[in-house]
Amino acid sequence: MLHAMIMAGGRGTRFWPASRTRMPKQLLPLFGGRAVLAQTLDRLHGLVDPARTIIATNAEQQDAVRACATGVPAENILVEPACRDTAPCIALAAAVVSRRDPEAVLLVAPSDHVIRPTDSFHKTIRAAADLATGDRAIYVFGVRPSSPSTAYGYIQKGAQAAEQDGMSVFSVVRFTEKPDADTAARFVDSGEYYWNSGLYLFRADVILEQIRTHAPAIFDGVQQIAGALGTPDGPATMDRIYPALEKISIDYAVTEKANEVKVMGVDYEWNDVGSWTSLVDVEPADVDGNIVRARHVGLDTNDCIIWEQDDHLITTIGLSDLVIIHTPDATLVCAADRVQDVKTLVDKLQREGLDEVL
Amino acid sequence: MLHAMIMAGGRGTRFWPASRTRMPKQLLPLFGGRAVLAQTLDRLHGLVDPARTIIATNAEQQDAVRACATGVPAENILVEPACRDTAPCIALAAAVVSRRDPEAVLLVAPSDHVIRPTDSFHKTIRAAADLATGDRAIYVFGVRPSSPSTAYGYIQKGAQAAEQDGMSVFSVVRFTEKPDADTAARFVDSGEYYWNSGLYLFRADVILEQIRTHAPAIFDGVQQIAGALGTPDGPATMDRIYPALEKISIDYAVTEKANEVKVMGVDYEWNDVGSWTSLVDVEPADVDGNIVRARHVGLDTNDCIIWEQDDHLITTIGLSDLVIIHTPDATLVCAADRVQDVKTLVDKLQREGLDEVL
Repeated sequence: MLHAMIMAGGRGTRFWPASRTRMPKQLLPLFGGRAVLAQTLDRLHGLVDPARTIIATNAEQQDAVRACATGVPAENILVEPACRDTAPCIALAAAVVSRRDPEAVLLVAPSDHVIRPTDSFHKTIRAAADLATGDRAIYVFGVRPSSPSTAYGYIQKGAQAAEQDGMSVFSVVRFTEKPDADTAARFVDSGEYYWNSGLYLFRADVILEQIRTHAPAIFDGVQQIAGALGTPDGPATMDRIYPALEKISIDYAVTEKANEVKVMGVDYEWNDVGSWTSLVDVEPADVDGNIVRARHVGLDTNDCIIWEQDDHLITTIGLSDLVIIHTPDATLVCAADRVQDVKTLVDKLQREGLDEVL
Repeated sequence: MLHAMIMAGGRGTRFWPASRTRMPKQLLPLFGGRAVLAQTLDRLHGLVDPARTIIATNAEQQDAVRACATGVPAENILVEPACRDTAPCIALAAAVVSRRDPEAVLLVAPSDHVIRPTDSFHKTIRAAADLATGDRAIYVFGVRPSSPSTAYGYIQKGAQAAEQDGMSVFSVVRFTEKPDADTAARFVDSGEYYWNSGLYLFRADVILEQIRTHAPAIFDGVQQIAGALGTPDGPATMDRIYPALEKISIDYAVTEKANEVKVMGVDYEWNDVGSWTSLVDVEPADVDGNIVRARHVGLDTNDCIIWEQDDHLITTIGLSDLVIIHTPDATLVCAADRVQDVKTLVDKLQREGLDEVL
């Protein structure tokens, strides 16, 4: 049976000031007019039952996540007491799911990406699930690069391993984390590389076996936690064990070491919406090239992103290539080509002790 | 005796969104850390007694003006029921003052200029008042142009007419309203021109006589109003007559037609602070060239004006030559070389019916 685990514990720092510790990117209607997590859950309708959907989040965000995740049972919200990156998170979900369903196939997905259309997504995941049911591979999903981006991880595909419902699956030669510009250009030119879209699919028992092999301490820890969850000792066990697990990504811990990793090339549009200017790729602009999600009146304003959370009026004169974000207590005005530095700004705010806006 | 009339009825549209119909430029702490009108009144300390200071304002602003103008008697606040430009306003003040003091010399000053240092201002006004007491001239005050600005009126000086306390007074050859750039450059090069700083000084009976000659209907109207003020019929008379007076500036109505107009060259620093970027001339910038009157954290931000009225946090990344103004209900982000268009923006807001932010 197909299960899903949505990773919803990120901070989304690059979307400050909209994104805050308690109300991060995935809980905001950043695009599409609804909370990003709600759109991710919607995308599972008809593919995975909400009763088989797990959401991993943290203590600060859990209330907002529960409010957003209607239909997902309370016991399916895994509240991490500390961020330990994706390996412990995925391992725990697999441990929980495999106790409920030893045959479980698990789709792991970030909570904050744009994937459309949904029917193409369903077709892709179903094809991968069909294959995964019958083998012991870790499936990742590759997006054909539209540019030599240095913001994504790359997957070099090898020989074709299978075809399922018209979807091709390849062996994986190599994973490369965010490459430099020259390397990225070479990758894209070669035609052998996909962007790594950050979704995984595998049998729960397969990923647990891989974790036991490559990260045995994590395996032991999550098994203890999964055994205690649902009992009176659950929260205390989680609080005692989880924060002590190694902080490591599933790619470093397992995927890059596992023998059987396969990449399925996808046809759907994918965007990880990693910064404010990503909205340009996922939201329609007006005739002046502006993306406006605000009460806005402007003169000679072009190619700007203007976004707000309240009913404040934003006015602009003679601007281009700016990002203007207004929230009730903080405003950001940022050159469009500097949106990656929002993270640096947030670090500075933290250093200056402005915790009330973080 | 020296009296003063402060014209405080303007809207200060170019300082939107800080400046509003009910809280215009002159009532805001735009610069100098205090309400602009309060600074103008402070400047009269030691020169004109508050009991001899009249403030002209309008119905929408009168409460805020009264709150700001501590020491000025309530009956000295002239509340215009409609804006009729400076001729009716000055005429009324002169009519009111001359009934109290037939020998009155009247200084007329805008409420929203920067003039400093105060002792130089006092010396200048005292010298002009001494001269005006003994003649029948209209005195205007000329500022040596520091640039060929097209934003100011120019005064061509003629022969030297007098010297008083080291201050030179000249006859006036010609007034020129805001000239084009070539004309302004020629004016400045000639060395014969001053900027018109918008202050006037005259005997009240002299200006009234000139108004009777050149604008008899205004003369009749303000005499009727001045006669009724302080009686039960005062407000009704004001409301009936004042709005029907011709809307015309004192320069067009009188100064440019009068025979005896003299210009005194001033030594003090003067700035009419006509737009947001004027703050550059009157307020100190930080090491990055920014003028910040806000809670601000920035990265690579230069030559910006950042101003706010609340405790909101304004953050900026990779910006230069921008004006960012935040108020509780509206924000402006404007290219520094486009600040004159704030007026156009306000017109647009008005056309779109956004009266709540005007």
